Amino acid sequence: MPIPTDSIRAIRWETDHLSLLDQRVLPLTETFLDYYDAPAVAEAIRSMVVRGAPAIGITAAYGVVLSARKYRGQHGHDWRASVAADMAILAESRPTAVNLFWALERMRAVLEDVDEVNAIDALLHEAMAIHDEDIAANFAMGEYGAGLITGQGPVLTHCNTGSLATGGYGTALGVIRSAFRQGKITQVFADETRPWLQGARLTAWELVKDGIPVKLIAEGAAASLMRSEKPAWVIVGSDRIAANGDVANKIGTYGLAVLARQHGVRFMVVAPTSTIDMSIASGDDIPIEYRDEQELMQLGGARIAAEGAHAWNPVFDVTPAGLIDAIVTEIGVISGPTKQKMSALMQKA
Amino acid sequence: MPIPTDSIRAIRWETDHLSLLDQRVLPLTETFLDYYDAPAVAEAIRSMVVRGAPAIGITAAYGVVLSARKYRGQHGHDWRASVAADMAILAESRPTAVNLFWALERMRAVLEDVDEVNAIDALLHEAMAIHDEDIAANFAMGEYGAGLITGQGPVLTHCNTGSLATGGYGTALGVIRSAFRQGKITQVFADETRPWLQGARLTAWELVKDGIPVKLIAEGAAASLMRSEKPAWVIVGSDRIAANGDVANKIGTYGLAVLARQHGVRFMVVAPTSTIDMSIASGDDIPIEYRDEQELMQLGGARIAAEGAHAWNPVFDVTPAGLIDAIVTEIGVISGPTKQKMSALMQKA
Repeated sequence: MPIPTDSIRAIRWETDHLSLLDQRVLPLTETFLDYYDAPAVAEAIRSMVVRGAPAIGITAAYGVVLSARKYRGQHGHDWRASVAADMAILAESRPTAVNLFWALERMRAVLEDVDEVNAIDALLHEAMAIHDEDIAANFAMGEYGAGLITGQGPVLTHCNTGSLATGGYGTALGVIRSAFRQGKITQVFADETRPWLQGARLTAWELVKDGIPVKLIAEGAAASLMRSEKPAWVIVGSDRIAANGDVANKIGTYGLAVLARQHGVRFMVVAPTSTIDMSIASGDDIPIEYRDEQELMQLGGARIAAEGAHAWNPVFDVTPAGLIDAIVTEIGVISGPTKQKMSALMQKA
Repeated sequence: MPIPTDSIRAIRWETDHLSLLDQRVLPLTETFLDYYDAPAVAEAIRSMVVRGAPAIGITAAYGVVLSARKYRGQHGHDWRASVAADMAILAESRPTAVNLFWALERMRAVLEDVDEVNAIDALLHEAMAIHDEDIAANFAMGEYGAGLITGQGPVLTHCNTGSLATGGYGTALGVIRSAFRQGKITQVFADETRPWLQGARLTAWELVKDGIPVKLIAEGAAASLMRSEKPAWVIVGSDRIAANGDVANKIGTYGLAVLARQHGVRFMVVAPTSTIDMSIASGDDIPIEYRDEQELMQLGGARIAAEGAHAWNPVFDVTPAGLIDAIVTEIGVISGPTKQKMSALMQKA
């Protein structure tokens, strides 16, 4: 079988700067924004020009390259200290996805070992390696995940876990791409994913581009969908996986997992090992980001809720390992995740 | 205790016409639209100028009055046949809420017995009785439902079941109003209720008006909310209740009921007996309305999803009786609904 591919690359290194597809205005407008320094990259992550755990990690890595390009060789400057300060700014951009910290750690290790002359080349090489390895991991996960799907039928996904959320191809959406190509998926149902509408705006856009049939549903329709349309699998990504297999992912994932178990629908989490945080014992310790309540009070900049109302807006939740049938990584699949199985897998990493 | 009240009346009979608060443009704009004939009223129901099962029933009843006013006394016209034709148009406006058919049946019975001279007075009297009885039922349900709540804490509600959805005061929101006044509710969490955003646009508006603290959540956050904020009850309305206690209500209700059971949160359905359809054995036989996929593809008239994507848009779902802790009606409460308990209650009606 030829290596599966897709046409979307949202993160591009352009000789002397980073170019990011502005995911805030998709699908109506396809615009790339250019970045020349790390604080601007941190703001791009915070404001969700780029989002998705692997994509955030790759973007932050390129942000470190921009920082080194800016500070190295400046007279009277401790350039390593300036880059370290920028890395701290990048690390503070969003709290939940561990890929961000993982990528920054890889860049820090390179920075520590390299001399001033070779710094930029070495850092750019590392950022590109992080990027390339992510795409390769996604192709591998696509194969592993598709291999779990037997028969032919619809699947349900949540948020956006595709090319836009990664270096390319996608995690959960990569599995869907591979399984669709193998003839195993007749219809993708995608949660619209409030409040940010990643499903409606991004996942639908990617799937239409790839010719994969997609129907959006309101999150509230997921239980009915499981009862009447009988998807065999719910397939989602992750922003951080704890050592016991608990999974942090976009708000709504935990509810889907409960509903899936109740309806006999299997539940697959697709994430590279860079998403696994063995330093965290369980999901209880994963920091959950709460975003501005205006994300729920407004739509497209226009107020929708009454003045005086408030909102409760956690943007991630934690799904207990016990509700997960399979965690698919680039180095293998864990069925029924436990602490022991997670450790065994990570010893291969 | 004084009879609880509220300030919102969305359905008003005005001497010679019906005036409806346009719920499509709330909360930004408070406009009443005037109706002089039944087909226009049917279109108002279909297009959701007015929505909510009891409110639809009341509105349709006034629509019959408008029809009789239009046709009675016209020369060369079989006015009863013309009114019957208008009633058929009203009956076709929306399929799921049984209150619509129940109210039309009450109007039909009056029409059958009345002479031409007294027809308009008699029909208007009946429509006003349906309206007044609905408000009285809501006050009664408020007391019954609040009586089930012990202690003090947050509750979660879905869609809009308040003054806007009824003759006034509300079903589930009536219980919340009464329980709040009794000091039992510290915080109302309200699902924003995609795709039509009844929670964000209508429930938040009503609760802010009444000084009841309200926080909106995305539907996807409900499972996390149950785990971390521990509401004692989910309180919802209904569009039709089958003879075995299965409940049709706004899409998302069934999922909430599954999640509530999983988290030890009790589940209360509040609906007048006019919502109970003893002619339907179970929820499987309740017709579920599917609305235009554009409701999910657009927001505020602007396209949000990629061209080429589609949507699956059922706007109601069915919650099995076994997931419901209490059905609250104006004539009493059923705990753990069964066919036998439903029959016993309806013999009192």
